[in-house]
Amino acid sequence: MRNESQTQRSLSEVWTTRDLLPKGRLEAFSDGVLAIVITILVLELKVPGLSEDKHLAQALGHEWRSFAGYLISFVFVGGVWIAHANATRLIKLGDQILYRLVLLQLFFVSLLPYMTSLMTAHLGVNGQRIAVPLYGLDLLLASVMLNIVIRYLGENRELVIDEIADEELHEIAHQRRSTLTLLAIATALAVVLPSVAVALYLLATIGFVIAPLQLARRRRRARARRVSPAP
Amino acid sequence: MRNESQTQRSLSEVWTTRDLLPKGRLEAFSDGVLAIVITILVLELKVPGLSEDKHLAQALGHEWRSFAGYLISFVFVGGVWIAHANATRLIKLGDQILYRLVLLQLFFVSLLPYMTSLMTAHLGVNGQRIAVPLYGLDLLLASVMLNIVIRYLGENRELVIDEIADEELHEIAHQRRSTLTLLAIATALAVVLPSVAVALYLLATIGFVIAPLQLARRRRRARARRVSPAP
Amino acid sequence: MRNESQTQRSLSEVWTTRDLLPKGRLEAFSDGVLAIVITILVLELKVPGLSEDKHLAQALGHEWRSFAGYLISFVFVGGVWIAHANATRLIKLGDQILYRLVLLQLFFVSLLPYMTSLMTAHLGVNGQRIAVPLYGLDLLLASVMLNIVIRYLGENRELVIDEIADEELHEIAHQRRSTLTLLAIATALAVVLPSVAVALYLLATIGFVIAPLQLARRRRRARARRVSPAP
Amino acid sequence: MRNESQTQRSLSEVWTTRDLLPKGRLEAFSDGVLAIVITILVLELKVPGLSEDKHLAQALGHEWRSFAGYLISFVFVGGVWIAHANATRLIKLGDQILYRLVLLQLFFVSLLPYMTSLMTAHLGVNGQRIAVPLYGLDLLLASVMLNIVIRYLGENRELVIDEIADEELHEIAHQRRSTLTLLAIATALAVVLPSVAVALYLLATIGFVIAPLQLARRRRRARARRVSPAP
Repeated sequence: MRNESQTQRSLSEVWTTRDLLPKGRLEAFSDGVLAIVITILVLELKVPGLSEDKHLAQALGHEWRSFAGYLISFVFVGGVWIAHANATRLIKLGDQILYRLVLLQLFFVSLLPYMTSLMTAHLGVNGQRIAVPLYGLDLLLASVMLNIVIRYLGENRELVIDEIADEELHEIAHQRRSTLTLLAIATALAVVLPSVAVALYLLATIGFVIAPLQLARRRRRARARRVSPAP
Repeated sequence: MRNESQTQRSLSEVWTTRDLLPKGRLEAFSDGVLAIVITILVLELKVPGLSEDKHLAQALGHEWRSFAGYLISFVFVGGVWIAHANATRLIKLGDQILYRLVLLQLFFVSLLPYMTSLMTAHLGVNGQRIAVPLYGLDLLLASVMLNIVIRYLGENRELVIDEIADEELHEIAHQRRSTLTLLAIATALAVVLPSVAVALYLLATIGFVIAPLQLARRRRRARARRVSPAP
Repeated sequence: MRNESQTQRSLSEVWTTRDLLPKGRLEAFSDGVLAIVITILVLELKVPGLSEDKHLAQALGHEWRSFAGYLISFVFVGGVWIAHANATRLIKLGDQILYRLVLLQLFFVSLLPYMTSLMTAHLGVNGQRIAVPLYGLDLLLASVMLNIVIRYLGENRELVIDEIADEELHEIAHQRRSTLTLLAIATALAVVLPSVAVALYLLATIGFVIAPLQLARRRRRARARRVSPAP
Repeated sequence: MRNESQTQRSLSEVWTTRDLLPKGRLEAFSDGVLAIVITILVLELKVPGLSEDKHLAQALGHEWRSFAGYLISFVFVGGVWIAHANATRLIKLGDQILYRLVLLQLFFVSLLPYMTSLMTAHLGVNGQRIAVPLYGLDLLLASVMLNIVIRYLGENRELVIDEIADEELHEIAHQRRSTLTLLAIATALAVVLPSVAVALYLLATIGFVIAPLQLARRRRRARARRVSPAP
């Protein structure tokens, strides 16, 4: 009887009563914001002026903090992009709540250019005990929100492409936990040991990018073994 | 007989005589502009320099106006994006007029980074009686234009996906009216009470984001009740 | 016999021997560049600082040149976007030459934020006899390149969706000619009468946006008359 | 037997066990980053202020280094975009490794606005022996990574659209080699002859854009000859 009433309903009624939203615009807007953030990070790097021309190599060396901050933020946003694509390939639709969760996630990502500048401007001086934890907190909140997005997808069977996609999504969220913990520790540590925290930020963001690769490799091997069981 | 003549006409003839335009590019360009505006808002936030390093927490506190303006504008653009997706999921095509209405709507959204800076730079000093109403006016015009876009879609049956989508679109436009009224009041009030107006701006923009969620929840409950009528 | 050999060829062979390229990326990249240019124009507007707080309305009035330049450039880029969508809806594929023509077209559009700043900074003073013609030249070259793109599409039947799309494309290119002429005259005039030229730039860019609308209306009326011939 | 087990597997299982990722987001994110880089290059061009109004033409002439740098970078990013579209039209899917290779490729492209400013600020003075090679190195690494991406696609038959697409991809990568060599020579030369190197950079980037066009023309002629063998 339920199926019957559904065929009677029009397409737009299905969209609205189930409060669904297209997957396409969620991806387009996310890709847009991520692409812009990752690209405008470069605007925060200071080009040494003519007064520093004589010792340009040295002047560039002095900017190592900016380059380090740029690198961490770039790798982080890249990792968010890949994780995003990894999750949304398993869904066929979005809904009202998902759009808002993604918006909140992008809020913390959008703050990154500011937080990066703040951290690199005060790294090595007194303000680092405030700036470095704030930067870490932003990375952490963006990461936690991403996991919330992924878990939300896994818990809403109406949105995913088939009946086992939810398991995959939970696995993706689960697999991110160790790097999330590392990021949380680094952020807490940043209050007392800012330089160590920055190193750990880099480690954690690289972890976000590398970990899914290792998972994929392990799976491919498992598959290869299943196809040809005996050596 | 009318259907017959239509099959004789070529596809490009249908496009041009009916002055239709693709839905895809309307969404792509809108998503692009919205994603860029929401992301470059951050460029207006001032990073405290080394001279403020000793009292960084205090210096950041001094910037609360910028953060408040950033937050309002971010939430507003996010709300526009969701409302946009909410409306265009119900259409299958655009037309020449729609493209121009959307362009005008994006014009007011594009002014936001400037208006935000203008407001936060003069909040608390003499100029706020000009800057705060101007900011509110920009929010208001962007919101009104969005409603005009949604109403236009609802009135052009050729563009929507089916015969009841127009009702949904009118409901979306209607539901936005109370927050629109709040925004209009806040803008008028800004001339005499700028600080109160800023608080109301935040309220109205959050309203734009939250309201469709409540509507969706109410509908889902109504649907649940219909499926299982007796407790 | 020719069809036969074609079915034997693989899909990628068709792509490469006919040197075709996807339509989607042409649109995505164009929409991206146009959306970014139209949005970063706002970064060139100067927010009056605290020193001008006492006379904020006056200070904003002083910036009228920047606002005028912003408006012209915004309307122009919006017009390019609509004309672009108007043309590419009639094609199904791109090719190697088309991509390069579009790239050159986007080059002149990308220069707009710089040219706008240059013009508005020197409008009313000595340098306007150089800055205003340069700005007009940029508008003109971007417009001419757009017409070349549209004509190229009309002349390559392999790329368009059906056998009469090429006529439509020629009509679109043709219809743009009067505003192109106006822009050319304004640019030439800018050397001797910069202020008049700026007014004509605004007129021409608005013309680019409005003209297709009038064409569409005329067509719709013609169609209505054909469907119901007697009143 | 292998096909059988595959039909039993669900769609999401295929996605994850084969570690595949959608092609769409790879293109959308790449187009986004490329569109932003190519557009924000213009923000690095300095508009002569009112103090230079009297001699505006001269002041603009003084900026020739910036314009030259802008041109090289614009042409380079445009060439990357076309090469990208040229390669991804031949694939139907991405995978975990491909996403990371593309991300690394975009890293070097994203550095371009900074590197362009660095080079043009120090061209003609002492620092050019550091700035010009660094710029060339960035172009070179971005180009080499692009070739690695194209080769990776050619070596993963699961990702391409049919059985001969891999040959085409190898040919595209191969055809890029001569301009890559030119770029490598220019970068090495930049340490001793910076000005000559800049001229060669321009030559190489134009080569990247023009070369595929010549290849396409040669192919079209070959096809024409095959269709009508005797004159």
